[in-house]
Amino acid sequence: MRFGIDVVATDGQARTGWVDTPRGRYRTPVFMPVGTRGAVRAIGTDDLESLGVEIVLGNTYHLMLRPGADLIAGRGGLGRFMDWGGHTLTDSGGYQVFSLEPKVTDEGARFKSTYDGDVHHLTPESAVDIQARIGADIQMVLDVCPPLPSERPVIESAVDRTSRWAERGRAAFVAGSEERLERGLDQAQFGIVQGGLAVDLRERSARALTSLGFDGYAVGGLSVGESRVEMVDVLGPTLAHLPADQPRYLMGVGDPAGLVEAIGLGIDMFDCVLPTRFARHGMVLTSEGRINLRNARFAADDGPLDPGFAASPANRYSRAYLRHLVNVDEATAARALTLHNLAFTLDLIDRARSAIESGTFETLRAEILDVWG
Amino acid sequence: MRFGIDVVATDGQARTGWVDTPRGRYRTPVFMPVGTRGAVRAIGTDDLESLGVEIVLGNTYHLMLRPGADLIAGRGGLGRFMDWGGHTLTDSGGYQVFSLEPKVTDEGARFKSTYDGDVHHLTPESAVDIQARIGADIQMVLDVCPPLPSERPVIESAVDRTSRWAERGRAAFVAGSEERLERGLDQAQFGIVQGGLAVDLRERSARALTSLGFDGYAVGGLSVGESRVEMVDVLGPTLAHLPADQPRYLMGVGDPAGLVEAIGLGIDMFDCVLPTRFARHGMVLTSEGRINLRNARFAADDGPLDPGFAASPANRYSRAYLRHLVNVDEATAARALTLHNLAFTLDLIDRARSAIESGTFETLRAEILDVWG
Repeated sequence: MRFGIDVVATDGQARTGWVDTPRGRYRTPVFMPVGTRGAVRAIGTDDLESLGVEIVLGNTYHLMLRPGADLIAGRGGLGRFMDWGGHTLTDSGGYQVFSLEPKVTDEGARFKSTYDGDVHHLTPESAVDIQARIGADIQMVLDVCPPLPSERPVIESAVDRTSRWAERGRAAFVAGSEERLERGLDQAQFGIVQGGLAVDLRERSARALTSLGFDGYAVGGLSVGESRVEMVDVLGPTLAHLPADQPRYLMGVGDPAGLVEAIGLGIDMFDCVLPTRFARHGMVLTSEGRINLRNARFAADDGPLDPGFAASPANRYSRAYLRHLVNVDEATAARALTLHNLAFTLDLIDRARSAIESGTFETLRAEILDVWG
Repeated sequence: MRFGIDVVATDGQARTGWVDTPRGRYRTPVFMPVGTRGAVRAIGTDDLESLGVEIVLGNTYHLMLRPGADLIAGRGGLGRFMDWGGHTLTDSGGYQVFSLEPKVTDEGARFKSTYDGDVHHLTPESAVDIQARIGADIQMVLDVCPPLPSERPVIESAVDRTSRWAERGRAAFVAGSEERLERGLDQAQFGIVQGGLAVDLRERSARALTSLGFDGYAVGGLSVGESRVEMVDVLGPTLAHLPADQPRYLMGVGDPAGLVEAIGLGIDMFDCVLPTRFARHGMVLTSEGRINLRNARFAADDGPLDPGFAASPANRYSRAYLRHLVNVDEATAARALTLHNLAFTLDLIDRARSAIESGTFETLRAEILDVWG
């Protein structure tokens, strides 16, 4: 099925609504916590539920190696495996694989597992097949994502290979539809637009991808070294070339300023490790900006983690207590701060939805940029 | 105040009831999870509440070094610091300090902090003072706990030094009562009986300790290398010398067989790291005995963690999922298995209380020893 987006309200380019799926629907804009290895680090499925998370991202690279796509398929797919009733999305595995500096040809990428050194291949077709076995609601096409800054020829070649891979990936996905439906899996596939900071290459990539008829479109290759201004400058023109009636997903962005900027340009979906990774290092997102709990000034601070965010799931604990737990490396601190940072991020998204509905998004954006910009 | 025990029912030597305290009361027999550094490893205060934990043990050794007794005192004491409304007990710190092979004289022990190498002293008096600052409901007197087996002269000398230290510790505790009450802390102090496996030395130690009028009595120096039969053989005669109207606490025992054996002899309180430490290594207490989730036979096991324990807080997850999380070292596996192993242990204690009330404790004991003996 095609993942239509049901836009309920717009405010400038910003929009809020629902994505209808075979599983049900999820609200947009939406933030997807990263469940790297079948769990969002430091927290459980019960925690995802109590946070009100609607969709979780799984990393194909990790899951294909441990516990393996077939094992997950045998357990009924990623959602059943995690006992998670919400939506799921898997990335293509390409992003992690490329970080291993694999041997890349037009055929695909050949890499060594970081778990045991075994050699694996990732091709546009195998990425589709592996993600079909992992069985998330949404799978991503294999793309080529160069770091920034990169020379124009590098970006251009990535765009063109991404287009060729997208064509093969889409064909493999369409060819597998019947087999997937037979085993009860009505999966969607999103394309990924590349092009670095070059508006013309972004347009070329968007045209190539949209011609293939994906169920949604991601903007990849951002949040990989550029400034926020550079990101915003290329994101707007890119979105103009993506269909308005399908979900638009900005990969790898999850800082408060990046979220409001991208929502303001019309992005519907986000994933990012920032809130959860920060949490594991004692870094806390608060109404007044980022704080590092390891700082000595919190040693005797009996106040709550974020006095400006009364709904924080960690507010029952004082900063002094959480700082102590961070300092002695207690795992429960990682959980408490992960719950807080995710709740903070989800609350920001909630506020963005409300602001779009009431036509006050610009005020919220300015308020957030004032603290985080 | 004196911590009287209100015995509701007995079955042979086994007994169940309540310990009345200035904070309220807790049921006995009771199992105290170990909150080493102000948190039970891998879980939060919310988890302790949902498990129905009634009393938590804190390790004075760790807390005095990180975050420090004065910092905890400034936060209102250990319970307030953790936002934990239940009971708390601190050990004397001696057990951990002796494991560092400190310089020990009759005065006390001189040791280097494992955190930063700083030199600290632990004496009967400073153990009282530090625990008064940490501010648990119950503090333990400083004792000398030799490993087993040890030569009789070693045990005998430990008994005698334990008696001398208990006298000093009790005097320091009594001298500090007024100061503690002035700052709202109505603390109890338990003595610790030593004596290894020698019944006559246990009797000598018990007589010396009980003459000092502690608020409760622990049996220390067991679960330190001896067999369960040896433990049981010395525990019975030891308990005969402890007052029946005060709580009796067996330190360091928490395996299912050890629990039912000791409850059968009249023990009221237990602490042990076994359920929580096992959990962090993928070892699970189940109705059919201990399982190691890392075992390959669980890789595709879609069944719950313990089909015989429907109330397990981890039963929503399959063994296959939890095994995967253990294998990739996800912190949430440690939490799920810690919740399970504690729930299993607390449930066993619950069943023991019910069995004592209904006069069927011997049946429960036989059933548990059949699986765990």
